[in-house]
Amino acid sequence: MNTKEKKTAILLIHCPDRAGIVHSVTGFLSSHGGNILYLDQHTDSDQKVFFMRVEWSLDEFSIPVDEIEERFNESCGLKYEMSYRLYFSDYVPKMAIFVSKLSHCLYDLLARYAAGEWKVKIPLIISNHPDMKSVADMFGIPYYEFAVTKDTRDELAPKMLELLRENEVDFLVLARYMQIVPELLIDAFPNKIINIHHSFLPAFVGAKPYHAAYERGVKLIGATSHYVTPVLDAGPIIGQDIAKISHKNRVEDLVRKGKDLEKIVLSRAVEKHLARKILVYHNKTIIFS
Amino acid sequence: MNTKEKKTAILLIHCPDRAGIVHSVTGFLSSHGGNILYLDQHTDSDQKVFFMRVEWSLDEFSIPVDEIEERFNESCGLKYEMSYRLYFSDYVPKMAIFVSKLSHCLYDLLARYAAGEWKVKIPLIISNHPDMKSVADMFGIPYYEFAVTKDTRDELAPKMLELLRENEVDFLVLARYMQIVPELLIDAFPNKIINIHHSFLPAFVGAKPYHAAYERGVKLIGATSHYVTPVLDAGPIIGQDIAKISHKNRVEDLVRKGKDLEKIVLSRAVEKHLARKILVYHNKTIIFS
Amino acid sequence: MNTKEKKTAILLIHCPDRAGIVHSVTGFLSSHGGNILYLDQHTDSDQKVFFMRVEWSLDEFSIPVDEIEERFNESCGLKYEMSYRLYFSDYVPKMAIFVSKLSHCLYDLLARYAAGEWKVKIPLIISNHPDMKSVADMFGIPYYEFAVTKDTRDELAPKMLELLRENEVDFLVLARYMQIVPELLIDAFPNKIINIHHSFLPAFVGAKPYHAAYERGVKLIGATSHYVTPVLDAGPIIGQDIAKISHKNRVEDLVRKGKDLEKIVLSRAVEKHLARKILVYHNKTIIFS
Amino acid sequence: MNTKEKKTAILLIHCPDRAGIVHSVTGFLSSHGGNILYLDQHTDSDQKVFFMRVEWSLDEFSIPVDEIEERFNESCGLKYEMSYRLYFSDYVPKMAIFVSKLSHCLYDLLARYAAGEWKVKIPLIISNHPDMKSVADMFGIPYYEFAVTKDTRDELAPKMLELLRENEVDFLVLARYMQIVPELLIDAFPNKIINIHHSFLPAFVGAKPYHAAYERGVKLIGATSHYVTPVLDAGPIIGQDIAKISHKNRVEDLVRKGKDLEKIVLSRAVEKHLARKILVYHNKTIIFS
Repeated sequence: MNTKEKKTAILLIHCPDRAGIVHSVTGFLSSHGGNILYLDQHTDSDQKVFFMRVEWSLDEFSIPVDEIEERFNESCGLKYEMSYRLYFSDYVPKMAIFVSKLSHCLYDLLARYAAGEWKVKIPLIISNHPDMKSVADMFGIPYYEFAVTKDTRDELAPKMLELLRENEVDFLVLARYMQIVPELLIDAFPNKIINIHHSFLPAFVGAKPYHAAYERGVKLIGATSHYVTPVLDAGPIIGQDIAKISHKNRVEDLVRKGKDLEKIVLSRAVEKHLARKILVYHNKTIIFS
Repeated sequence: MNTKEKKTAILLIHCPDRAGIVHSVTGFLSSHGGNILYLDQHTDSDQKVFFMRVEWSLDEFSIPVDEIEERFNESCGLKYEMSYRLYFSDYVPKMAIFVSKLSHCLYDLLARYAAGEWKVKIPLIISNHPDMKSVADMFGIPYYEFAVTKDTRDELAPKMLELLRENEVDFLVLARYMQIVPELLIDAFPNKIINIHHSFLPAFVGAKPYHAAYERGVKLIGATSHYVTPVLDAGPIIGQDIAKISHKNRVEDLVRKGKDLEKIVLSRAVEKHLARKILVYHNKTIIFS
Repeated sequence: MNTKEKKTAILLIHCPDRAGIVHSVTGFLSSHGGNILYLDQHTDSDQKVFFMRVEWSLDEFSIPVDEIEERFNESCGLKYEMSYRLYFSDYVPKMAIFVSKLSHCLYDLLARYAAGEWKVKIPLIISNHPDMKSVADMFGIPYYEFAVTKDTRDELAPKMLELLRENEVDFLVLARYMQIVPELLIDAFPNKIINIHHSFLPAFVGAKPYHAAYERGVKLIGATSHYVTPVLDAGPIIGQDIAKISHKNRVEDLVRKGKDLEKIVLSRAVEKHLARKILVYHNKTIIFS
Repeated sequence: MNTKEKKTAILLIHCPDRAGIVHSVTGFLSSHGGNILYLDQHTDSDQKVFFMRVEWSLDEFSIPVDEIEERFNESCGLKYEMSYRLYFSDYVPKMAIFVSKLSHCLYDLLARYAAGEWKVKIPLIISNHPDMKSVADMFGIPYYEFAVTKDTRDELAPKMLELLRENEVDFLVLARYMQIVPELLIDAFPNKIINIHHSFLPAFVGAKPYHAAYERGVKLIGATSHYVTPVLDAGPIIGQDIAKISHKNRVEDLVRKGKDLEKIVLSRAVEKHLARKILVYHNKTIIFS
């Protein structure tokens, strides 16, 4: 996406549906010299809610960057009772990775990072085990081990949060992190913690989904990326994919096949998040194209 | 599969795993002039169970058809404590279709039937509504309406069973039949009632799975074919498939997209059943290739 | 899509990309009381071309239906050098089906038609063989047989065209029609003849693609829906899908598995066409969502 | 697959189809105490060729390992005119990776290697560019740069071959290696060079398949793993997969989406090769399950 090469701004908007919203927003942009690069709009006609993502070039846009939000609010936001977020393409978000003992998702994220596939910084990796330190070292990323268990989870949370704050982390990616995220972190990063669950949710919530899938005798396994909320495995779903299996596959085959699903589904979610293409509304995601 | 043109026999076998079973079975067949056309074998090494499907030509097979079962039992069955079933390719099974108000699965089954795609007879269609009678008439198949409701279900079951018996029905296909099957029928047709459920089980068991899928905000919908057991939507799964959906899809879009999944997944299950490629063991299916 | 219940208008637009087009079109609509139901926009930044589909309610739209095109042209069309087409949701298009000897696509189309899944009329079916007459009769649709061969094709074309004209046919669907369409018809129905080709084009152009796929030893087979142009199997692709196959599959297995692909891919293309969601530009399709 | 934990032997067999082959092979094994773990058999009834993969435990097998081949040949091989290969599960094959400038396939292979997912040694990486040396260094694998161009290819081939011989390499994996492999290497490693081509072959043979796919306006892109033969992109296909694309995707989007396909399809092929599950016959592969 070479649009990232020129500086752009992105607005993610939702508001009660009314006539004239698109016209109003595009009028605001074009009247100030903003050339629209992408416009994706969706109306939920059941709930009467309007959703929009618009990205425009700042090259000849006449409003200074630090005044856009205020001016947009005056022109459109207040009038249509909008909830909106404004992003700039030249900001490089900071992403923290949480990992336990499995390396496949971690490698997939770091390989993309090292190849420059994403516009992101990874200032640190956090784990409840020492196992992945060697991988973090290979890629030159600081690794912090917290001896998190069910009992120490809430006690360690403030230290974790402090570390994330110090590193100015914008969002978290749980790359098969096998501990429950403390509420302190969930509250601090609302819709900013991406998890990969190794089943096609809502089937097989919780621990050991491959074992449960094997027991039930399903003919496909899945993986689901979602934002973390206080209810386990119940947050807004970002993406899902599946793979076919057969009676010949044992649990360890499901685990092995599932790894390929997990890493791709997780990385696709990170990509959508970085591209500011996800809007969360009422525990569901709008994924703009 | 032009092997059906010559007369063949098929054995579906399972037994405790021991050394020498394949050798014993193939020895029995080849010593009597049986040329093996397909042999598919699987061992569940966790449960130590051996599964096998073998199909051979009867052209030069020296044992008369009505003695094969006894002779096989003497040679192999007793020795290895086998459970097995013997089928002949020239037998044309009789299939009853159960339907309610939706036509898509019914048309898909009947179109294949009319085109001669399957070696099957459809002596009757049973419904709890009059709506599909016109479709049955188009294809010249007798249509029986039973005013089944929650309250009349068990009362009407003996009449249904009698009708199925009179027509010498071998197995039932529930083509989006929206009533629970009475236990009398389930008992009479064990692993011989194929249902299509409009979700990727075990997610969204029960009624209105598309509404539930919409509410949860999943990114894929599914369909599952399975044999009916007394526990709702919990029988052995035969096949599953999914389709991607997006936030733009409303419940009616899910229903519409789901219909294509349902009819294909159901027909594939019927095809596997007719080809004697499904073996049920402990609420799971072995699907031979 | 219950939007069809209220009367709507749809515009499909493409033009050289410039700033302000969305604003201009939405301004035209909202200034006359048109409530936008769907707006989908795409810019080809390589070719600098702007594409848009917009659908709006005519309930409170102040411009009379027969003046909309002219007024839109004055307000937006001329200014932006637009190519555009205007459709109304209450018009029921007429679709002719061409078929040869295979029934699977025909049944799939007619089953949807009979179930009222699509807003379409099917005034006639044309074939080069008598085989499918019985299917046409079942659904009560006139069936015309033309003894088309390589030699009689161009000679019979004017009669075919006359028949299509008499029936006021809007578009043609080739449901596994095994003859080349004469240029007279292609010229008369530009981007209005939908074909299903039984391969993932551009692989296996021409006759017997399943045989060619088998010979090459591919691990997946496909089906492709496309608009017919004078160059065989080279028209704009509407949709494609694939199924996995294995070394165990013979040519007849590919044919059998392929049928399910073909009918679904073809019907999806017809659905997109009917929903006015396809725009053809430079031998490619823009498929609006 | 915990069967690798105990020492097993694997036979891959093909021969003219005749009655009694399975019985003969299983008889040879069971008469010497060989417990069969997997048996997968396939008969090509068009070509009258029999294919088989059998894996058995060596724990109580009475024939010494270095005599198995000879004894099998005497008992079965000669009688049925078999072509066969014998493998042992405790042998660790040596795999050389060839790479150019793109890292995604390389990382995917090396991440699995580092995680111990495969039973393989990677003694060296060969490239025509210096770019991937840093990745090789991260994983501690020797990296050899050969300045291969169209002109120097054949001249450098003997040196390459010598290096591969010195390292006792068993097979090569081309992880997006952008040079044609010299015939000297192809001859030295028949059906032992695995390539990943970034299209669903036979569509888009040769250079720049994503550009060609974009030009044609296809709705899905693919990747194909295959063994290298002297004819470019025409060797036996091992595996294929596809991803859906839309008109919104530019060439760079196809390239980006394609990378995920390529790496997974390549790694799956390596996995099948390592598991001795691929048999090549007449430019096609039999992939045992």
